[in-house]
Amino acid sequence: MTTESYQTARTTVRRIAPRGAYDRTTIHSILDEGLVGHVGFVVDGQPTVIPMVYVRVGERVCLHGSRASRLMRVLAGGAEACITVTLLDGLVLARSAFHHSMNYRSAMVFGTGEAIEDPAEKMHVLEALSEHVAPGRWADIRGPNDVEMKQTAVVGVTIREASAKIRTGPPKDDEEDYALPVWAGVLPLRQVAGTPVPDPLLTAGIAVPSYLTRLHV
Amino acid sequence: MTTESYQTARTTVRRIAPRGAYDRTTIHSILDEGLVGHVGFVVDGQPTVIPMVYVRVGERVCLHGSRASRLMRVLAGGAEACITVTLLDGLVLARSAFHHSMNYRSAMVFGTGEAIEDPAEKMHVLEALSEHVAPGRWADIRGPNDVEMKQTAVVGVTIREASAKIRTGPPKDDEEDYALPVWAGVLPLRQVAGTPVPDPLLTAGIAVPSYLTRLHV
Repeated sequence: MTTESYQTARTTVRRIAPRGAYDRTTIHSILDEGLVGHVGFVVDGQPTVIPMVYVRVGERVCLHGSRASRLMRVLAGGAEACITVTLLDGLVLARSAFHHSMNYRSAMVFGTGEAIEDPAEKMHVLEALSEHVAPGRWADIRGPNDVEMKQTAVVGVTIREASAKIRTGPPKDDEEDYALPVWAGVLPLRQVAGTPVPDPLLTAGIAVPSYLTRLHV
Repeated sequence: MTTESYQTARTTVRRIAPRGAYDRTTIHSILDEGLVGHVGFVVDGQPTVIPMVYVRVGERVCLHGSRASRLMRVLAGGAEACITVTLLDGLVLARSAFHHSMNYRSAMVFGTGEAIEDPAEKMHVLEALSEHVAPGRWADIRGPNDVEMKQTAVVGVTIREASAKIRTGPPKDDEEDYALPVWAGVLPLRQVAGTPVPDPLLTAGIAVPSYLTRLHV
């Protein structure tokens, strides 16, 4: 895909159109900041939504899981998926109930799944997944062995259509409500990492690696 | 619904079955802690997943939006929905790539939408939504007027089937990997509120309400 826009009829934001964005840079930046995506697929006409760790590799959103898992089997079989990533940035507190909102950045990606079976490509995705969640970790750990690689399924969903929806800034109230004696503004929200908790079985003398203490999630 | 379990064939966790839970208390507690749910529905056979603020009211997960929104119209028309709420509690850092994981609590709810049109019931849900996100806020703000109520759709999805999936605790490594000189443990993650940012148009002298500074999100 060489286009710089993922906009299609299906992905055009219809509610509050100015919040919509379709450019590759915006959508990639949201995908690259999130850790967990919500993956929607259809089984027997019924919607199912499963939270999954993911990583964007080029134009694909990649997932991994047990080869026996239903989601992996369905996506490896070429099913349609919708992967939505939501970054919650704050509560927007207006003077009226009606104008309350959230500040957020969300990306919604549509595409079809495909199995990634080539061993080198599969290993590359597993490394990218690890580095997406905890940059620096991959070099420290024991990599997947042949048995583990066989048990692990990796699927990619090529971004065929996508949209982002973004709200930022203060509340917007009705003109006559600005005179109300009500506090209004934004309560920022963010995800933070706490102090690392060592495994009770950790060998004595192994320090917390610096890449974990620097981690911004 | 009077049963204490939401377990059905469809909601039975098949991957890593000990992580599954189906009791009302567990599922309600996850729903009551989350702010944003990911709502899956099917249009023309295609899955779509949209992030939505929600509140549990009794046995229903309730959503609101513009009466013109597609999601509201589809759910008000009785469509099948899957609403998934995920609370991310930490990164699980094992000694091998294969045993890396996340600590999380997720709830997946299946049900069909229905419009909530009765004005008193609708107002009750809007108040519950507000109090779910920012307890104490409703008493301060201008409530919805007739025009706003007409523009707002409220739908409920009765919890017909549901499952929770929960992982807690340290990594579990393969026996022979415990000797590796690799730090292992959990990096806790949580969502926190920052310092409230006043609306630039806020009337001077209005203090941040105490319910916001106490808010745990």
